[in-house]
Amino acid sequence: MEKYISLAHGDGGELSHRLIKDVFIESFGDGDSALFDAASVDIPVGRIAVTTDSFVIKPIFFPGGSIGKLAVAGTINDLAVSGAKPVYLTCGFVIEEGFPILDLKKIVHDMANEAKKTGVSIIAGDTKVVERGSADGVYINTTGIGIYELNKGCSLEFEEGDAILVSGTIGDHGVAVLGARGELGITVPINSDCASLNRMLAEVLEHTNGVRIMRDPTRGGLATTLVEIAEDFQVTMKINELDLPVREEVHGVCDLLGFDPLYLANEGKAIIIVAQQEKEKVLDILREYPEGKDAVVIGSIVGKEKGHLLLETPLGSKRLLTRLSGTMFPRIC
Amino acid sequence: MEKYISLAHGDGGELSHRLIKDVFIESFGDGDSALFDAASVDIPVGRIAVTTDSFVIKPIFFPGGSIGKLAVAGTINDLAVSGAKPVYLTCGFVIEEGFPILDLKKIVHDMANEAKKTGVSIIAGDTKVVERGSADGVYINTTGIGIYELNKGCSLEFEEGDAILVSGTIGDHGVAVLGARGELGITVPINSDCASLNRMLAEVLEHTNGVRIMRDPTRGGLATTLVEIAEDFQVTMKINELDLPVREEVHGVCDLLGFDPLYLANEGKAIIIVAQQEKEKVLDILREYPEGKDAVVIGSIVGKEKGHLLLETPLGSKRLLTRLSGTMFPRIC
Repeated sequence: MEKYISLAHGDGGELSHRLIKDVFIESFGDGDSALFDAASVDIPVGRIAVTTDSFVIKPIFFPGGSIGKLAVAGTINDLAVSGAKPVYLTCGFVIEEGFPILDLKKIVHDMANEAKKTGVSIIAGDTKVVERGSADGVYINTTGIGIYELNKGCSLEFEEGDAILVSGTIGDHGVAVLGARGELGITVPINSDCASLNRMLAEVLEHTNGVRIMRDPTRGGLATTLVEIAEDFQVTMKINELDLPVREEVHGVCDLLGFDPLYLANEGKAIIIVAQQEKEKVLDILREYPEGKDAVVIGSIVGKEKGHLLLETPLGSKRLLTRLSGTMFPRIC
Repeated sequence: MEKYISLAHGDGGELSHRLIKDVFIESFGDGDSALFDAASVDIPVGRIAVTTDSFVIKPIFFPGGSIGKLAVAGTINDLAVSGAKPVYLTCGFVIEEGFPILDLKKIVHDMANEAKKTGVSIIAGDTKVVERGSADGVYINTTGIGIYELNKGCSLEFEEGDAILVSGTIGDHGVAVLGARGELGITVPINSDCASLNRMLAEVLEHTNGVRIMRDPTRGGLATTLVEIAEDFQVTMKINELDLPVREEVHGVCDLLGFDPLYLANEGKAIIIVAQQEKEKVLDILREYPEGKDAVVIGSIVGKEKGHLLLETPLGSKRLLTRLSGTMFPRIC
């Protein structure tokens, strides 16, 4: 087999056919469904969740993951926070001419692995090749389909006093990826938190009551995601700076370089807002999972109708937080 | 609003938020579903069809269409040929820094237009921005979900004598796009055939019997698609060179430049293989539609178990056709 992707791998002819067979079917299998064509699959319930995401992360391999693992986990998490059980994934590749086929195999292997671990099937795919200089290695789109297995979802209704939880330390992914790019000028001993959260979040939904909303704070970080919730549902939130779980190493990098962990991307964390009296039960469940062992309460809903996010500093003053504005870091996911 | 896409449009913060509002929701609407997040939609219990496709066509605007129209029609056709009724689409954009926002609006408008015409809803989306030089304008992934409304599908079982039909002239898209790139050194007065075929193909399935298979001969052209069918189902096919519908202008370009219309891409054509006695009924239905007015029979199944595609030339000799091999034309879709 060739060592590098050529334009002919994308023209739908003989080489495309072999690439699909040797790289994709080799890892994904071709099970019941015609991989790389329209797949026909069963849906047991009348409502589905659908989400799509393109991944352009640089570098494609980073401490704690790869674009392949991320492309699966990222889309699975979008389904999981919506209260759906992820069941099917599609993947679309745009590959630059000259890309090493061994790297493509590693990426596809990571995807297959993460899909298997989380119980989703990759049912359809597509590969396009563009000329050298028209992409940067490989970009992957994944689209996920989930089903609502539980009769319980997030209420999307909030009350004063509701607790705001985060399932672990923030900013790990952002710092790990920037470190891997060599742009920081320092070595960063941090792994990305890239992980699929579907089983953990399904257990939270199933075994507790009063979950208002779940979200994954990826691009834009924790602050941007909370601002979106505050604005969408017209509630005012207060979070406490001292309660934010931030790794020492992430703190160090942020202090040194002027970043704010509140705006750094996460790829294996969930925000959960839940009725005050249920917060301990949710924390107990989260902490049973490796991905949730550092879960904590970081604040609460303090009012309605304003749509604001307030940060209480260690000195007791309150700062109004806004969405991320201006690029901090392109191609973080 | 800004005139050009900047990296900050892709970071998930304030500018991403405004881009989604001003460009995407403006055209697609935000209906029932949270556009640009996981959407929750109704589906009849049972079986669904799922397909995904990335579009990297160059140029992004071409005679007869744009990457936007193509990204919708292409995925709709993949569902339609599988016998499903397309109902939902997702879209994922990878945009190069510096891309004109007016062009993005035109593309999104074309997508909304084509979706409306064909009766599908665009329910989820995603936008990523990469640095100047890391993409060529814009790449779009669309993933389509279809339902099986009819109790009738393609039998995927073949008999000797089954007729092979094509719904119109071949090679129009390939020649139009190459012409638009200015690579041919000549002016080509041809429009791409880019069109959604879902209504026409649904009527064929509904009102006739004995449809064996339907496929859309895109990348790789008519010959590659027929070879795939021949190999997958172990049937031998014969098509007649004199019966192939090829526009005079396409013939002209092919003769001049040494292309073979059998291997040129189509984006609004279907191959239908149907029981011999039903072929006239199918032709009658196809010809009622503007996209099917040039439909003809081009050959038949002549044997089983061989997996070959034969071309009968005007002199009566037979040539074995293979898949497209080696790149003819990158980025044709």
